Amino acid sequence: MLEKLKERVYEANMLLPKYNLVTFTWGNVSEIDRETGIFAIKPSGVDYDLLKPEDMVLVDLSGNVVEGHYRPSSDTATHVELYKAFPKIGGVVHTHSSYATSWAQSGRDIPCYGTTHADYYYGPVPCLRCLTAEEIDAGYEENTGHLIVNEFARLGIDYEAVSATLCKNHGPFCWGKNGVDAVHSAVVLEEVAKMAFRCELINPKVAPAPQFLQDKHYYRKHGANAYYGQGGAK
Amino acid sequence: MLEKLKERVYEANMLLPKYNLVTFTWGNVSEIDRETGIFAIKPSGVDYDLLKPEDMVLVDLSGNVVEGHYRPSSDTATHVELYKAFPKIGGVVHTHSSYATSWAQSGRDIPCYGTTHADYYYGPVPCLRCLTAEEIDAGYEENTGHLIVNEFARLGIDYEAVSATLCKNHGPFCWGKNGVDAVHSAVVLEEVAKMAFRCELINPKVAPAPQFLQDKHYYRKHGANAYYGQGGAK
Amino acid sequence: MLEKLKERVYEANMLLPKYNLVTFTWGNVSEIDRETGIFAIKPSGVDYDLLKPEDMVLVDLSGNVVEGHYRPSSDTATHVELYKAFPKIGGVVHTHSSYATSWAQSGRDIPCYGTTHADYYYGPVPCLRCLTAEEIDAGYEENTGHLIVNEFARLGIDYEAVSATLCKNHGPFCWGKNGVDAVHSAVVLEEVAKMAFRCELINPKVAPAPQFLQDKHYYRKHGANAYYGQGGAK
Amino acid sequence: MLEKLKERVYEANMLLPKYNLVTFTWGNVSEIDRETGIFAIKPSGVDYDLLKPEDMVLVDLSGNVVEGHYRPSSDTATHVELYKAFPKIGGVVHTHSSYATSWAQSGRDIPCYGTTHADYYYGPVPCLRCLTAEEIDAGYEENTGHLIVNEFARLGIDYEAVSATLCKNHGPFCWGKNGVDAVHSAVVLEEVAKMAFRCELINPKVAPAPQFLQDKHYYRKHGANAYYGQGGAK
Repeated sequence: MLEKLKERVYEANMLLPKYNLVTFTWGNVSEIDRETGIFAIKPSGVDYDLLKPEDMVLVDLSGNVVEGHYRPSSDTATHVELYKAFPKIGGVVHTHSSYATSWAQSGRDIPCYGTTHADYYYGPVPCLRCLTAEEIDAGYEENTGHLIVNEFARLGIDYEAVSATLCKNHGPFCWGKNGVDAVHSAVVLEEVAKMAFRCELINPKVAPAPQFLQDKHYYRKHGANAYYGQGGAK
Repeated sequence: MLEKLKERVYEANMLLPKYNLVTFTWGNVSEIDRETGIFAIKPSGVDYDLLKPEDMVLVDLSGNVVEGHYRPSSDTATHVELYKAFPKIGGVVHTHSSYATSWAQSGRDIPCYGTTHADYYYGPVPCLRCLTAEEIDAGYEENTGHLIVNEFARLGIDYEAVSATLCKNHGPFCWGKNGVDAVHSAVVLEEVAKMAFRCELINPKVAPAPQFLQDKHYYRKHGANAYYGQGGAK
Repeated sequence: MLEKLKERVYEANMLLPKYNLVTFTWGNVSEIDRETGIFAIKPSGVDYDLLKPEDMVLVDLSGNVVEGHYRPSSDTATHVELYKAFPKIGGVVHTHSSYATSWAQSGRDIPCYGTTHADYYYGPVPCLRCLTAEEIDAGYEENTGHLIVNEFARLGIDYEAVSATLCKNHGPFCWGKNGVDAVHSAVVLEEVAKMAFRCELINPKVAPAPQFLQDKHYYRKHGANAYYGQGGAK
Repeated sequence: MLEKLKERVYEANMLLPKYNLVTFTWGNVSEIDRETGIFAIKPSGVDYDLLKPEDMVLVDLSGNVVEGHYRPSSDTATHVELYKAFPKIGGVVHTHSSYATSWAQSGRDIPCYGTTHADYYYGPVPCLRCLTAEEIDAGYEENTGHLIVNEFARLGIDYEAVSATLCKNHGPFCWGKNGVDAVHSAVVLEEVAKMAFRCELINPKVAPAPQFLQDKHYYRKHGANAYYGQGGAK
C-alpha cells in the first residue's frame, strides 16, 4: 500500500547522508499522502546503509502504525502534530546536522545576515524554548510538535515563509511541500547556520541584512512575482 | 551558434561543484565572445547534475537572450554590466561560497594577511556597500553591476589587479580572462577568506602583510618581470 | 587462535579511517574475549592501508603478548587497566580525533549542551588531569589507565553511563560493549566535541541543557524503559 | 638520470593533494641524492593532475638546473639553502596548507598543547619574522632559506627535533629524511595547527603541555629508547 510514497520517502531519507546531515541514525524524513491522511516515515534506529524502501513505516494522523515491520522513528509524534497544524506541508525532516544543532544548543535564533538566508527564509529562523519538565513527562515528542505550532502562532511566523525551526538544546525540524523539499530546507538551514556562525566571528557587531534586501531576495524566489528559476511563463 | 563557447562555459560551471563552491544552484559562470559581443551563461535554477552544454543561454550586451531554451541566470544583468565596464575580462562568476559569503555578510573587506592573497590580489578584496532600496527597486541585478564598477572607480582599484569583490549581505563576484579563469579567482577568494578568518581568531591584533612583501609576491606572478610558472622565455 | 576476534578487531580498527578519526596511525582499537581474558589489539605504528586481520596482536590481562608477529599498540597497558577495572566493557579505543583532542588539550570537560550529547553520555565528558612526572616515569601507559579508573571512581561517574573520557594534553579514550561499540562512542564524542565548540562561540554564556531534558534523552535510549530503535518488544 | 629519485619525488608531490595540503599548484616537494648533491623538485606552476615523474627538474646545490624540460619551482633557492645548511635532511616541502598558513599569517609560534604535537616536534613550531625589503630585493627565495637556517641557530632549535617552521605572512616549510618524510611532517603540522587553533578558542587561557609530558612523548617515538612502532629489537 502506498508503495510510491514509501519509495519517495526512502529516497528523501537517503539524501540526508548524501548532504552530510546525519551521523549514524540521527535523522528522519517523512512525507504525507494528504488524500488518505497517511504518512511514510523512516523506522527508528535503522542504519542508512541497510535501509530499503519497504522498511518505511506507514502512520496515520492519530499516530497509529498502519503498516510496517519496524517501529517508526521515535520522533513520529512530532511529525503528526506538524502535519495536523500545517495543512500546506507535505514533508517533515528532523536532523542533528552540525551547525544548525550548534545554534539550537546555544539557544539563539539565526539572524538573517544575507541573501543566502533571505532567498529561503523570510526573517530569522527561530530557536524555540525548551519543553518544561511537565511537558516532557506528558508526552515529549507530541509536545515538541505542539510547541513548534504554538510558538509559530504566538510569534506570528508564517510556516510557509519560514520552513525551519530550532528546538533549544535539541536540533532542527524542517518542512516543505514533500519529503525532498523538506530535506532541501534542512540543507539550506545548515548552510545558513554555518555562514551566520562565521559571519559573527568575523564581525561581532554585524547587523542583520536590511529589510528591503531581505524582501527583494525572498520575493525574487517566492510568490506571484518570482523570476528565479524556470517556473511560470518564460 | 557559438557551440565551443557554450561547451567552455558548461565546463567552467561544472568546476563550481568540483571545488565545493556551490550548494544546489547557487552560482553561475559566463564567458563572453568579444568579437560578437555575445556571452554564454548558466540557465537559472537548473541543477548541476542535470546541466548540459546545450543548456547554456546566449545573451548580448543589451541583456537580450539571443539563443537558448531556458531563462538565463537571474544575475545576468550584473554580468552584462561587468562585461561592458571591464573591457579586458572574458569571464564572470557569482557564487555563495561559504567563507567568502560569510565575509560579505559581515560587511568587511578581506585584508591581505599573506602571500596566498598577495599572489593573486593586489591589496584587500573590497566589500562594497549594500544597494539602497531605490537602487534595488530600479533594477537590482543591473545596479549590482553598476555598484561594482562605480566603487572600483571611486576606490581607485584596478579590476585587473583585484579580480574579485564582495557585495555586502550577499556574496562574491569574481572575473578573469575567461570562464575558467574567473572560477580560478573564486577558488582563490574562498581560500583567502578562510585563512583570513582563522588568522584573525588566532591573533586578533594581526596586521596586514608588509607592502613590500605584497609587491614581491604579486609581481612574481604578474606583469613583465613575473618568473612563476612556465610562461615567458625559459 | 581467536581468529574471529582478530577479524572483528580488524574491522573495528578500519572504522577509524572510515569515520575520519585518525591521521596516519594515531589510533587503536581492541576487543576482549572475556572467557579467556585475552584481547586483540592493533599493532603499533602499522599503516591502516596495510593492516590485515592476522596482524592483530593477542594480549592477556597481565599485558603479555600471547600471539602476534608485531608489537602491540604502545597504549596496550592502558587498555589492560580499563579491561581489569571495568568488567562490563568489551572494547576500548584511543584516537587523536581532531575536536575531542582539542578539548583534551584545552583541559576542559565537555558540557552537555543538548540531546546529541545526552542521547549517549549521562552528564559531561570529563577531562582528567595530566599524569605527574612521577606517574609518567613509573609507567606512563599503565598509569593512564589507573588515572581513568581512579578519577571515574573519585568523581562518582558510572563508566557505563559515560563511555568516554579526555586525558588532558593528550586525547580521548572510549569504550563499549565490543570494539565496534567503542568506536561508535568515539564517533559520537567527536561530534559532540565539535558541536560544543561551535555552540560556545555562538553564545559564550550558554548553559548546559536542563537536567530533565538530559534524563529524558538518556533514558529514551538506555535502560528498562528505552523506546528508541528496534530493541525490546515491538 | 636519477630516474628513481624523480619517481620518488613525483610520488611525494602527489601526496600533497591526497592529504588536502594544496590548492592548485601551491606546493612543492624535493628530495636530494646526497651522493651526487643533486635534488629533484616539482616544476613551477604545473597542475598536479598533469604532473608526470619525468617532469621533475634536477637541480644542483648551486641552484643550477642539471636536467629538465620545465623551470623548477620558484621556491627552489629556498630548498638549496636548507639542503646546504641541514646536512641530515633528505627532503623539503613547502605548502600553503590552510591552518598552518593561517598561523603563519598571524605571526605566532604554534605552542605545544599536547601529545599530538609532542610526538613529532620538540617544543613550539617557530614562526619566523618577515624578510626585510632589502632581503627581499637581494634574493627573496634564497634569503628565505638563510632566514630559516639563521633563526634556528639563533633560537637554539635543533632542525632534527623540529622539522617544520612558519614564515610570517607566507606559510610553512617542512623537511625530513626524504621527500615522503617531509610531507609527513607537513601533514602533522597541519593537524597540530588545526588543534591548537581550536584549543585556544575552547580555552583562551590554555597553557602549553607540561615539559615532562612533552619529553615522554617525544622520546617514546625518537632516539635510542623509542618504543613506538615496529623499529628496533622486538
